[in-house]
Amino acid sequence: MTDTPSALSPVLEQADKALDAALERLFAFLRIPSISTQPEHAVDCRCAAQWLRDELDSLGFDARLCETPGHPIVVAHDRTPPAGPHVLFYGHYDVQPVDPLSLWKTGPFEPVLVTGKDGVKRIVARGASDDKGQVMTFIEALRAIRATQGTLPVRVSLLIEGEEECGGPNLLPFMDAHSDELRADVGLICDTAMLPGVPAVTTMLRGMVGEEIHLRCADRDLHSGIYGNAARNPVELLCQALASIRDPQSGRVTLPGFYAGVQDPPEALRARWAEIAPDDATFLGEVGLSVAAGEKGYTAIEQTWCRPSFEINGISGGYADEGFKTVLPGEAVAKVSFRLVAGQDPIRIRQAFCARVRDMLPADCTVTFKPCGGSMASTLPDGTFGLRPTLAALGAEWGTPAVTIGCGGSIPVVADMRRVLGMSALLVGFALDDDRAHSPNEKYDLTSFHKGIRSWVRILHAMAASHA
Amino acid sequence: MTDTPSALSPVLEQADKALDAALERLFAFLRIPSISTQPEHAVDCRCAAQWLRDELDSLGFDARLCETPGHPIVVAHDRTPPAGPHVLFYGHYDVQPVDPLSLWKTGPFEPVLVTGKDGVKRIVARGASDDKGQVMTFIEALRAIRATQGTLPVRVSLLIEGEEECGGPNLLPFMDAHSDELRADVGLICDTAMLPGVPAVTTMLRGMVGEEIHLRCADRDLHSGIYGNAARNPVELLCQALASIRDPQSGRVTLPGFYAGVQDPPEALRARWAEIAPDDATFLGEVGLSVAAGEKGYTAIEQTWCRPSFEINGISGGYADEGFKTVLPGEAVAKVSFRLVAGQDPIRIRQAFCARVRDMLPADCTVTFKPCGGSMASTLPDGTFGLRPTLAALGAEWGTPAVTIGCGGSIPVVADMRRVLGMSALLVGFALDDDRAHSPNEKYDLTSFHKGIRSWVRILHAMAASHA
Repeated sequence: MTDTPSALSPVLEQADKALDAALERLFAFLRIPSISTQPEHAVDCRCAAQWLRDELDSLGFDARLCETPGHPIVVAHDRTPPAGPHVLFYGHYDVQPVDPLSLWKTGPFEPVLVTGKDGVKRIVARGASDDKGQVMTFIEALRAIRATQGTLPVRVSLLIEGEEECGGPNLLPFMDAHSDELRADVGLICDTAMLPGVPAVTTMLRGMVGEEIHLRCADRDLHSGIYGNAARNPVELLCQALASIRDPQSGRVTLPGFYAGVQDPPEALRARWAEIAPDDATFLGEVGLSVAAGEKGYTAIEQTWCRPSFEINGISGGYADEGFKTVLPGEAVAKVSFRLVAGQDPIRIRQAFCARVRDMLPADCTVTFKPCGGSMASTLPDGTFGLRPTLAALGAEWGTPAVTIGCGGSIPVVADMRRVLGMSALLVGFALDDDRAHSPNEKYDLTSFHKGIRSWVRILHAMAASHA
Repeated sequence: MTDTPSALSPVLEQADKALDAALERLFAFLRIPSISTQPEHAVDCRCAAQWLRDELDSLGFDARLCETPGHPIVVAHDRTPPAGPHVLFYGHYDVQPVDPLSLWKTGPFEPVLVTGKDGVKRIVARGASDDKGQVMTFIEALRAIRATQGTLPVRVSLLIEGEEECGGPNLLPFMDAHSDELRADVGLICDTAMLPGVPAVTTMLRGMVGEEIHLRCADRDLHSGIYGNAARNPVELLCQALASIRDPQSGRVTLPGFYAGVQDPPEALRARWAEIAPDDATFLGEVGLSVAAGEKGYTAIEQTWCRPSFEINGISGGYADEGFKTVLPGEAVAKVSFRLVAGQDPIRIRQAFCARVRDMLPADCTVTFKPCGGSMASTLPDGTFGLRPTLAALGAEWGTPAVTIGCGGSIPVVADMRRVLGMSALLVGFALDDDRAHSPNEKYDLTSFHKGIRSWVRILHAMAASHA
C-alpha cells in the first residue's frame, strides 16, 4: 500500500504544490448559483457549464456545450489521447436550492475555507461537496498530470450534466443519441461518500421514485367556522393517506408487494460494515438524533445502504405563516419519494403508491399525481473493469484498505450508463456523511479535496498499469 | 309584519336616499388594509380605527382610540343620549390576510360593486362582509336616524376592536378594566350570517380552541438518500398524529371525553332548520362539494351550527415549492382548531389534544405547542332583553318571520360580555354563507348592506317601543 511508482511522485508533488490555485478555481466554480430546479437560475446553470467547458478546453480537451430542452450538458474528449483503456468521467454542475437561507452562516454562493475548533479545514458553500468539489478533484488530477507528464495515462472523456438535482429527463435521451461517442470501457463517477479515513467504492446504489400529490376538495379556501366538519379537509385526507404508507410499529412500508424481490446483502458484508461503519448512535448523533427510525432489525447504515425507504420530502396546505387563520384549505400538496434497492421495480411501486392514495380518498376529493423521476437500483459486479486497480490505488493513497459500500442516495446515471452505453461505472467519492449535502452550510473537507485529487492521479495510473 | 310606525318611514326613506353615499363611505373603510395578524399592517389597523373614530365623532359621539399592547380599540358614547335602554354595539375593524392573492379577480383592498349575471349587486373586497360591511350597516342606521330625528331612540355605545381575526388577547382585559363604562342592557353584534331571504338572530355560537404544533427531529434538514429510513421524519410523524384525531368512518373526533356534555338541540328546532336551511347538496354545492364529510347522522348545517369540529388550518414542512428536493425535513408545523359547542371545556380539550400528540411521538422528536385563542360556546336564553322586538323588527323589514339559528364560527366576545359585563348579546347579521369570508373575492350583497341599515333602524326603534 505504500509503494508509489516513481513516475507518480512528481505528479503527486505537483498536485500538492498547486492546491491553493486549485482551491481558487473551485471557489470560482462555487460562486455560480447553478440551482437547476429553479427556473430563475437557468442562466447560472449555463454559466457553470461554460465555465467547465473553458477549463477543460484549457486542459487540452475538445470541450463543448450540448443543448437540451433543459440545461446544457458538457462533453469533452482528450485532444491527444493515449492508446489503452478509455474512461468516461461523469459529474454534475448543478446544485440544490439553498432554503432556508437564514440558517446559512455564510452566503451559500460565497465560498469560504473555515478552520474548525478540531483544526479541520473545510470548504463551505452550496455544492462544495455535491458535486462541484468532487468534480474538481478529477479535473485538478488531470491538470497535475498534464503539468508534469503531458499525456494522460488513459484515454479520458467527460460528461458533466446540469439536471442531476432536479431529476431532469434530458440526460438519458442525450446519452442515447450520442452513445457511440460516449461509450468507454468504464464510467468513473465522483458523487458519493466514503467513511471517515476509509476510502470506498460504492457498489450498491438505491434507485428512486418521486411523486408530487395535489389534493383538492372545495373549489376555494373556506371559513372553518362556516364549513368546518361538513366540508372535506384536503390536509386531513393527505395526512391520513401519507400516515398509512408506513407501519409505525415495524417501520416497514405497507404498500402491497413493496418488498417483493428485495434481498439482504451477504452476512459477511453486513459484518464488515458493522466493523467499519459508525453505529446508530454515532451516525444519527451527528444530526441530533439517537434512535434509528426505520425498519426494525437493521442498523441505521444498513437501512440507508441496502433497504428501501419512504420519505415525505415536503408538505403544504392552508395557512402556516405567522399568526393564525381559521381557514379550511381547498388544496393540499405533498412531495414524497421512495428509495429502491435491487429487485424493486420503480413503475410497480409508483402504481402501488398512487393506488393506495386513491383508495383512501372519499368522494368530493380529486387527486393529481405528478411523477418526479424514477430509477432502478443497481449493484456492481465484482469483476467490473477497473474495480481492483481502483481499490488498490485508493488504499495506497489513504493508507488503509478500501472497501465496497452501499449508498443511500440515488444516482440514476449508473443504471442509464449500463443500459444505454453497456458499461459499468465505478463510484469513487470523497464526501463524508456530515457534509450537509442538500442542507444549509454544506461543506467539503479540504482533505477530501486534496487527497481526492491525489486519489484520481493514482487511479488513472493504476488503470493504465493494470491494462498494460 | 307590514305595519311600519309612521315615525319610522322618514328614517327608512332617508336610509334609501343616502345609500350611494353610504356605499362610498364603506368603500373608503374597505380600502384600508387592516390585516391584524400581519405585523406590517399594524399601521393600517390604527388607520382603520382612526377612520371609525372620526366617523363616529361626526355623528355626535364621544369617540376615542383606546391603546392596548396590540391594535387600538374604538369606544364611542352618544353625546346626547335619550332616557331608556342602553345598547352596546360590538364589531371589528380588522380583516383576514388575503393570500392567495392570485385568486382575487380584483384587488382585495380596491372595493368594487359588481352586478352578477343573476342581476345581484355585490360589494367585493376583503372585509366587505367580515366585518366592515356589517359594522357600517349599524353606523349608517345611526346616521339616518340623526339626519331625520336628531335623537337616537335608545342610548347607544360602540365598542369596535381590531384583533378579532388574530385571536388577540387584549379585548378581554380592556373590557375588564372598563366594565362600568361598557356595561349596557344588551349587546348588539353584527358579525353573523342569515339564510337567504330569511332574517335570523344567532343564538347558538361555537367556541374555539386553536393550537400551533412544531415538531423537530434532526437538528437540520437532511439528504433523504443519506439519512432516509434511519432518521425520523417530522412531517410523517405530524401526519400520523393529525390523522389520528378523527375516525374516518364515523367522522367523530377520537380524543377521550371530547363529546362529554355535548347535547343535541331539541327535535323541534332541528325540524325547523331542516325546513329553512339548505340541504347538504345545496350548502356544499356552493363550494364545489356534494357529500357532508363530518359526523354521520347530522346534516351539514347541524354539523356546523351545533356539533363540535376539528380542522387542520395549515401545515408546512420540507420543500413544497416548484421542482423536487430530496430533503428529509428537520421540522414540521401545523395549525389546528377545534370548534366547541355548549358543554365543552376549551382547557380540557386543549389538554386532550396535546396529550394525544405527545403520546404518538417517539423518542428523538420534540414538540412545541403554542395556544392560539380559546373560548367557550354560548347559547342565548329565550328571555334575553331585546330578543323579541329584534325578531319582530327583522320580520317586518324582510317580510318573513325571523328565526333563531346556530353559527359555525366563534365570536369569543359573546362569552366575554356575559362574564365580564354581565350582559347578553344579540347576534344580528346580514352576511350570507356564500360571502367567501376569509377567502379570495369576499363579497357582501348590496341587499345585505341596504336592508341591514334599514333593519337596525327598525331594531333600535322596536327596542325603545318595547321598553316604553
